[in-house]
Amino acid sequence: MQLWFSEIHTPYVRLDMQIERHLFSGQSDFQRIDIYESREFGRVLILDGFTMLTEKDEFVYHEMLTHVPMAINPDIKKVLIIGAGDGGIVRELAHYDSISAMDMVEIDKMVVDACREFLPLTASKLDDPRLTIYYEDGLKFVRQKTDEYDLIVVDSTDPIGPGEGLFTKEFYGNCSNALTQNGIMVNQMGGTVYADDILVMQRSFKRIHSSFPVARAYQAHVSTYPGGFWLLGYGSKGLHPINDLKAENWRALGHKTRYYNTKLHAGAFAMPNHVLKMLNEALV
Amino acid sequence: MQLWFSEIHTPYVRLDMQIERHLFSGQSDFQRIDIYESREFGRVLILDGFTMLTEKDEFVYHEMLTHVPMAINPDIKKVLIIGAGDGGIVRELAHYDSISAMDMVEIDKMVVDACREFLPLTASKLDDPRLTIYYEDGLKFVRQKTDEYDLIVVDSTDPIGPGEGLFTKEFYGNCSNALTQNGIMVNQMGGTVYADDILVMQRSFKRIHSSFPVARAYQAHVSTYPGGFWLLGYGSKGLHPINDLKAENWRALGHKTRYYNTKLHAGAFAMPNHVLKMLNEALV
Repeated sequence: MQLWFSEIHTPYVRLDMQIERHLFSGQSDFQRIDIYESREFGRVLILDGFTMLTEKDEFVYHEMLTHVPMAINPDIKKVLIIGAGDGGIVRELAHYDSISAMDMVEIDKMVVDACREFLPLTASKLDDPRLTIYYEDGLKFVRQKTDEYDLIVVDSTDPIGPGEGLFTKEFYGNCSNALTQNGIMVNQMGGTVYADDILVMQRSFKRIHSSFPVARAYQAHVSTYPGGFWLLGYGSKGLHPINDLKAENWRALGHKTRYYNTKLHAGAFAMPNHVLKMLNEALV
Repeated sequence: MQLWFSEIHTPYVRLDMQIERHLFSGQSDFQRIDIYESREFGRVLILDGFTMLTEKDEFVYHEMLTHVPMAINPDIKKVLIIGAGDGGIVRELAHYDSISAMDMVEIDKMVVDACREFLPLTASKLDDPRLTIYYEDGLKFVRQKTDEYDLIVVDSTDPIGPGEGLFTKEFYGNCSNALTQNGIMVNQMGGTVYADDILVMQRSFKRIHSSFPVARAYQAHVSTYPGGFWLLGYGSKGLHPINDLKAENWRALGHKTRYYNTKLHAGAFAMPNHVLKMLNEALV
């Protein structure tokens, strides 16, 4: 017997992965959660039919959403993490002794519980003593915060289902208010290959651009995301993502990373022309 | 009725694209050739079951194999192209008035004929008066050449079937001999995501490294190639791919590109750590 999971990338494109073993399925108040053991990608977390992470390539996404801002501002002490119930963002941030507190706001406790049990690779640091987990709506949580966080990482699902509020203009404005003077916000914006993903990415970029004096997109190659070429967003009140990179400082920390390095850092912000065009069109 | 083409990326991963219309199938002396009209990617050229190009993203691959070397050495005049029967490489090179002659060596005339008829997007410059097409084995052709070409572009299939000889040590040595003092060779090396593609890529990189004093890998994001994260090879006797970039010179030419730009140029050579590891392991 062969079991295949097919992810619908567009009505005309599917990626199929062969499944070795079913590990978990649950319907929470917010979404359907599935975890499978796949033959090529290791364990896979699927929310509402969309691949959130695979053990084979999750390091790309999680490293790029954490080490990029940490290498720009080594003084980051207090971090807000929105979403990220699988724990991958916390795992990367936990490397930094300089971080004193992490607040993680995940709307869906079932995701955290399932990942603790079946995805130890990403959930390994969810017991870090610096971490507080709030099972709340990130949109509401961030509304109450002012000048409090040095870094906000928005690791959301796409704006269908529980992630919807995290793509609104209000949300990005509140993130800006919640950040300290040298604060940085990073988020998952969307893809660059298929039309629906591009629209989501453009909407997100437009809102970051209207909420932050410094707004940029940067790229990460996540093979199991639709089209593989994914954009992350960068917003800050003043820190430039390349000019303010503290490369030597970061290298001196000695973190062992599998994707990120300080040479790649600048390259990640250098976009192909067709993507620059999408980003420019988003601002019209 | 729905017709789907499934490309086998590994025994456990497939990419499916819905087909609108069958345009061409043929069995040449060398390989099976199929051209389909797909709904998402436009027309698709498939050799022996593997996607060689789609109209949607072929610009990435063709631009990166041509403008990268042309922006490093603006004095390139005589070019040898191996493979590339679809015409995409020639189309990009034809923009340069500075090029005086292009020799294209494609083993399979049926590919060229089919692409002329069904892939006008890539085959559009195959009648450029500077172009001579030789329907021969590239391996044998390059053996007879010394100090003749300023650029060699190796746009080969993978080393199964007709592309096999183009991944041998002898071939890269002969390319080095065929190049002028400031000559550059670029080639398609292989993928970075799936094990079989990585082995091919590593073998190719090892051979470039042993044949050229300057040997590097650079990346291009081609969504329809397995895993999407593809490596191209760069070999030269002395020109450094970044230090010798003539960025202003290239921009002054005013070429309209969809992927390549001179900022991205350096970024394309900045590899993630896991890919650096693959490249280093190839040289052990």
